[in-house]
Amino acid sequence: MEELASEKEAEESHRQDSVNLLTFIFLLTLTILTIWLFKHRRVRFLHETGLAMIYGLLVGVILRYGIPATSYHNKPPPSCTLSEGPVSTLLLNVSGKFFEYALKGEINSREINNVEQNDMLRKVTFDPEVFFNILLPPIIFHAGYSLKKRHFFRNLGSILTYAFLGTAISCFVIGNLMYGVVKLMQQVGQLTDKFYYTDCLFFGAILSATDPVTVLAIFNELHADGDLYALLFGESVMNDAVAIVLSSSIVAYQPSAANTHMFDAAAFFKSVGVFLGIFSGSFVMGAATGVVTALVTKFTKLHCFPLLETALFFLMSWSTFLLAEACRFTGVVAVLFCGITQAHYTYNNLSEESTKRTKQLFEVLHFLAENFIFSYMGLALFTFQNHIFSPIFILGAFIAIFIGRAFNIYPLSFLLNLGRRHKIKGNFQHMMMFAGLRGAMAFALAIRDTATYARQMMFTTTLLIVFFTVWVFGGGTTPMLSWLHIRYSAGRGTALQDDQRRHGKWKYFRVGVDPDQDLQSGGDSFQVLQGDGSQEEGQSKTKQESAWLFRLWYTFDHNYLKPILTHSGPPLTSTLPACCGPLASCLTSPQAYENHEQLRDHDSDLLRSDGDLTFMFGDTAITANGASSGGGDAAGGSAWGTNGKRSGSTSEEALEHELDFREQELLSRGTRLVFPIEDNA
Amino acid sequence: MEELASEKEAEESHRQDSVNLLTFIFLLTLTILTIWLFKHRRVRFLHETGLAMIYGLLVGVILRYGIPATSYHNKPPPSCTLSEGPVSTLLLNVSGKFFEYALKGEINSREINNVEQNDMLRKVTFDPEVFFNILLPPIIFHAGYSLKKRHFFRNLGSILTYAFLGTAISCFVIGNLMYGVVKLMQQVGQLTDKFYYTDCLFFGAILSATDPVTVLAIFNELHADGDLYALLFGESVMNDAVAIVLSSSIVAYQPSAANTHMFDAAAFFKSVGVFLGIFSGSFVMGAATGVVTALVTKFTKLHCFPLLETALFFLMSWSTFLLAEACRFTGVVAVLFCGITQAHYTYNNLSEESTKRTKQLFEVLHFLAENFIFSYMGLALFTFQNHIFSPIFILGAFIAIFIGRAFNIYPLSFLLNLGRRHKIKGNFQHMMMFAGLRGAMAFALAIRDTATYARQMMFTTTLLIVFFTVWVFGGGTTPMLSWLHIRYSAGRGTALQDDQRRHGKWKYFRVGVDPDQDLQSGGDSFQVLQGDGSQEEGQSKTKQESAWLFRLWYTFDHNYLKPILTHSGPPLTSTLPACCGPLASCLTSPQAYENHEQLRDHDSDLLRSDGDLTFMFGDTAITANGASSGGGDAAGGSAWGTNGKRSGSTSEEALEHELDFREQELLSRGTRLVFPIEDNA
Repeated sequence: MEELASEKEAEESHRQDSVNLLTFIFLLTLTILTIWLFKHRRVRFLHETGLAMIYGLLVGVILRYGIPATSYHNKPPPSCTLSEGPVSTLLLNVSGKFFEYALKGEINSREINNVEQNDMLRKVTFDPEVFFNILLPPIIFHAGYSLKKRHFFRNLGSILTYAFLGTAISCFVIGNLMYGVVKLMQQVGQLTDKFYYTDCLFFGAILSATDPVTVLAIFNELHADGDLYALLFGESVMNDAVAIVLSSSIVAYQPSAANTHMFDAAAFFKSVGVFLGIFSGSFVMGAATGVVTALVTKFTKLHCFPLLETALFFLMSWSTFLLAEACRFTGVVAVLFCGITQAHYTYNNLSEESTKRTKQLFEVLHFLAENFIFSYMGLALFTFQNHIFSPIFILGAFIAIFIGRAFNIYPLSFLLNLGRRHKIKGNFQHMMMFAGLRGAMAFALAIRDTATYARQMMFTTTLLIVFFTVWVFGGGTTPMLSWLHIRYSAGRGTALQDDQRRHGKWKYFRVGVDPDQDLQSGGDSFQVLQGDGSQEEGQSKTKQESAWLFRLWYTFDHNYLKPILTHSGPPLTSTLPACCGPLASCLTSPQAYENHEQLRDHDSDLLRSDGDLTFMFGDTAITANGASSGGGDAAGGSAWGTNGKRSGSTSEEALEHELDFREQELLSRGTRLVFPIEDNA
Repeated sequence: MEELASEKEAEESHRQDSVNLLTFIFLLTLTILTIWLFKHRRVRFLHETGLAMIYGLLVGVILRYGIPATSYHNKPPPSCTLSEGPVSTLLLNVSGKFFEYALKGEINSREINNVEQNDMLRKVTFDPEVFFNILLPPIIFHAGYSLKKRHFFRNLGSILTYAFLGTAISCFVIGNLMYGVVKLMQQVGQLTDKFYYTDCLFFGAILSATDPVTVLAIFNELHADGDLYALLFGESVMNDAVAIVLSSSIVAYQPSAANTHMFDAAAFFKSVGVFLGIFSGSFVMGAATGVVTALVTKFTKLHCFPLLETALFFLMSWSTFLLAEACRFTGVVAVLFCGITQAHYTYNNLSEESTKRTKQLFEVLHFLAENFIFSYMGLALFTFQNHIFSPIFILGAFIAIFIGRAFNIYPLSFLLNLGRRHKIKGNFQHMMMFAGLRGAMAFALAIRDTATYARQMMFTTTLLIVFFTVWVFGGGTTPMLSWLHIRYSAGRGTALQDDQRRHGKWKYFRVGVDPDQDLQSGGDSFQVLQGDGSQEEGQSKTKQESAWLFRLWYTFDHNYLKPILTHSGPPLTSTLPACCGPLASCLTSPQAYENHEQLRDHDSDLLRSDGDLTFMFGDTAITANGASSGGGDAAGGSAWGTNGKRSGSTSEEALEHELDFREQELLSRGTRLVFPIEDNA
C-alpha cells in the first residue's frame, strides 16, 4: 500500500508538471496571438518579449494570490541527520526497503516549513540550469548563425573593442559603484547579511550582458542603418559571451580569497587566466565542430538527402555545446562560435532545401526559447520565493548601469573614431547608449545561483532592471530613432508587405557566401573588383596592424580554408605550393574548378554590371537594372522587384536603401564574386 | 568546504550528463553517415533503425567491458532510516544545514552496493519516462500527420478491426500462452519469483504493439501496393494507441485483485471501462486541440507570418499531450488523433510556407527521436543492470508472438473479406503476418516499469524480440515481397532519383486536402465525379451500416466541419438551414464562396480531363496527358515528368504506378475536386 501511495504521488507530480508546462504553453500561445494582432495593427510601442513578460506577470499574480495554497501535505517533510557532508545520492531505509534520493540543493533554514506548503509556486519554478542548458543555446546559436556578416566583419574591430574592453569597463564600473552602494547600506543599517566585493563584481558582470533583442527587432522592421545594426547586434552577441566567462572567472576568484574577499594579486591573475582559458577553449571547441561539420558535408554526398543533412547539422551543433560542457568550457560561448563557423563554411555545402530547413528550424527554436524566457521572467517576479527588495540597492543599480554603459560607449567610441574612416557619429553613440537593454542572458546568469542573501538581492534587482529596460527602452526605440535623426525607411506599405519584405530578406540573404565582401557604393566596389587589395576600406582601421591582421586572415581564409572546407573559393591546386600537389587535388572539390572558370567570366560581367550600377545612381529606374542583373534566385529577384516598385520617390534615402538590397543580391553571387586575391599571393 | 565539495560533485554530475548525451549524439551521427552510405550504395538488407541498434550494441559492449569501473566513491552511499513510507521530498540535516533530496525510485536490496560503483552504466540509463514524454510524442504525431489519407480512409473499417479486435485477440493469445509457459517454468523450477496472470496479459499488451517502421520505409522506397501500405501503417499506428491504453487498463485491473491476481468479473469490467474511458477521452482531447488550432488559424490572418504560425502549430500540438496527461488520459494517443485532425483541417489553413515548415520540423524530430530510441535499445542490452535471461520464457515469447499475430491476421482477414469488395489477398495477409515487427512502442512500454522480477524478465525478452524482428523481418522485406509476388516498382533509376522521387512525393502530397476522395481508376473516378454518391466504392463494406455510418460522417464533415474549420468546402450559407443564415455567413470564409464558384467550373473540367485519362489507359503516352492536366505545383509536375520519362515499358504494372502519381496530382486539387454532395442534401 505504501508502494501504491508513492506511485500515486509520482503520478500526481507528473500531472502537476504537465499543468505547469501547459501554463507556459498557454502564455506563449497568448503571446503569439497578441504579437500577430500587434503586427496586424502595426503597433510598435511594445515588443513581443515585453508582451510575454506582461502575460507572465499576470499569470504570476494569479498563481500567487488567486489560487489557495494547494498543500496536500501540511506538515514539513521528514528530515534525517547525518554527520557527513551532503552527498549526491542518499538511501532511505523504510522497514527493509531501500529508496534512492538525489540531491536537489541546499535549503534555507527559514524555508523549511515552506517546502511543501508553496508546492504550486515551487513547482512552477524551473531548475535554473534549464535556462543555461536548454533555452540559451538555441538563442545564441541562432544569433551566430544569422549574423549579418558583411556589416559585422566591416565593424569587427569596433565590435570586439566594445565587447571585450567595454564589457570589462562596464563590469568594473558597475561593480565598484555597487560596492559603494553596499557600503552606504551598511552605514544606514539596511544590509542584514554579508555582501562582498566579489559579489559586487559578479553583479557587474551580470549586468554587462546587454541584449537589445527588442531594439534589433524594431531596427530590422524599420530598416535602420546597417552599420549601427551590426555594431549593436555584434556587440550584444559578443558581450553575452564575455559576460558569461567573466562571471565564472569572478566565481573562480572567490575561493582562494574566501576569507578576505579583498584584492589579491595572485587570485586576480588566476581569474584572468581562467577567463582567457575558458574563452579561447570555448572558441576553439565551437570552431572545431563547425569545421568538422563542414568537412563531413563537403566530402559526403549528404546533400542528396536533406533530412539526413539537417539532422546531422542539428546534432553537430548541439554536440558543440555538450563537448564544451564536458571539457569544462562554456557551452553557450562555444555554440556562438559554432554558429558563426557553420554560417561561414558549412552553409555553403548544404543543399538548397537544407539551408532553408536549418534556418527555419533554429528560427522556430529561438523564437520559442526567447519568449519562454521572457514569460518566465514575468512569472518569476511573483512566484520566486526569496525576493529581497532593497530600494537603495535597486536605485543604485539603475544609476550604475547607466554610468557603466556611458563609460563603455562614449570613451571607446572616441578612441575608435580616432582610427575609423567611417566615424561612429554622435547620434549613433546615443542610440547605442539607449539600446543597452538587459534581457535573457542577465536573467539566466542571475537565476543560476540564488543561494545566498547577496545573490537573492541581485536576482530581484536584475529582474526589475530587465523589466524596466525592455519596456521603456524597447518601447521608446522608434521615437528615439526619430529624435536622434537616424534614418529609417518604414512607414510605407502595409504591415503585410513589410513583413514579407523582411521575411524575404532574411530568407534569401545567403548568410554564408563570402559576405565579408565590402561592396561600397559606386567607386568603392569598382575598386574592390579591380583587385587592388583594398577590401578593408571602411573596415575599422583602428591601427594599421589590425587591418593587416585582418587582411592576413582574409587571405588565409579565402585561399586555404574556404577551398578545403567548402565547394567555393579557388582550387587548392592554384593556391598551395606545387609540392602539395596530390594533397591539394584530393581536397579540392570538382565544383571549385568549375567556379574558378566561371569566376573569370563573371568577374568581367560584374565589372560591367557594377559600372552600370554606378552609372544609375542619379536615376530612379533601378528596377530595370535589377532585372538585368540576372543570377540570384527567383524569389530574391521578386523581393527586389517589390522594392523597386516602391522606389518612386527620388529621395537619396530611398536610393541608398535600394542599394542595400542591390548589394545583397550581388552578395548572393558571392562565391563567384570573390576578391581576386591570388594576384597578390 | 563541504559546500564546495557538493558544488564540485554537482559539476561533475553535469559533466557526466554531457558526456552521456555526447555518446548518443555520436551514435546518431554515425548512424546518419552510414544511412547515407547505404542509400548511396543502395543497400536494402538493413534499415537505419537496425543500424542504430547495432551501433548502440557496440557502444554498449565498450561501456560495459571496455571501461574500468569508474567509481569515484568506492563505498556505498550513506543511508538513513525512517519509519514512514517513502516521501517525495526528504530533508537532510548536516550540522544545522538542510539539504533537499528528491525521490528517484526504489532500489533492489542486492543492488545497493552497485549504486555508485556502476555509475557510468547507471548514468547512461535514462529515466524511462523520457521515452514516453519526450521521444514518443513526436514519432506518433508525425505518424498521424503524415497518414496517407486516401488509402487510409478507404480501408478504415479493416484498419480499425485489426487495431481494436486484432490487438485484443493478440494480447489475450500471447497472455494465455505466456501463462502456460510460466506454469511450465514453475514446474521445471526455472522461476524464482512471482509471475501473475495479469503480468502475462500485460506482456501480451506490450507485444501487441507492432511497429513496422522498417517495412514501411522499404515499402515507401519500393512503391509497393498502396492498400497494403495503408493497412500496415494504419494498423500499426492505431494498435500502438490501443496497446498503450490496454496495458494501462491491465495495470488498473491489478490493484483490486492484488491478492488473488485471478479473474474477477467486477475488476474485468472496470478495466474495460477504464479502457473505453481513456481511449475516448484521449481521442476527444486530441481532436479538440486540433479543432481549436484550425479555428485559430482560420479566423486570424496568422498565415501572413509563417514563423508565428509554425510556432503556434507546434505549441498547440504539444499542448494536446500535456492536456491529456494533466487530465489523466494518455498523451501519446491524444497526440495521434491531434495529428490526424491537424492534417485534415488545420493544414488547409496554413500558409504554403508553414505547411512545409511544420512537415519538415516534425520530420526532423521524428527522425531523431526514432533513431535515438533504437540506438538506446542497442545500448540497453549491455548497460541495463537487471536483465533476466530465461531461455524458456524467451523461446515461449517468440512462439507466442507468431501465434498471436496469426490469430489476429488470418481470422480477421477472412471475416473482413466477407464484406470487402477489394479482398485482402492471401499474399497480402502473409505480408501483414510477416510485417509484425516490434519496435519503439513495445520497448517504451516494457522499460516503463522494471521494478519487479516479472517485469525485468519481460523487458529482456521484449528487447530480444525487437532485435530479432527488426533485423530479420526488416531485412527480409524485399525478398519477401518478391517471393509473395507483391508488385513494386523500384530497381529502375539511381538511388538519388529514387530518393528525389520519394522526397518529392512526400513533400508535395498535400496531406490535408480532401484525400478521402476515392479516385478509382478510370470508370470509378468518373462515377464519383458524376456525383452518384458512390464514394464508398472500394471502402470496406463489411456491413451496410458501417458504409452508411461512414457516408453520414463524410457528409457531415464535408458540409459542416470543413466549412467551419477551414477555408474549403461549400459555403455554410448553402448547407445550413436558412434560419441559421447570419451565423452561417459569419463563419464562412470569403475563400469558400470563391471556391464554390470555381468548383462548378472545375468539375466539368475534371470530368473532361478524367475522361481523357480513361481513354488513355491502353496507351503509354501518359506524360503528354500529365502536362495537359495543369494545376498542382510546379515541383509536383516535374516529379511527374521524371516518372513519365521512365515509363517506356508498356507493362501494366508501370502504368498502374503512373496512375498512382497521376491520382496524387489530382488530389492536390482536392479542395476543388470535392464530391458534389450538395446535390444529395
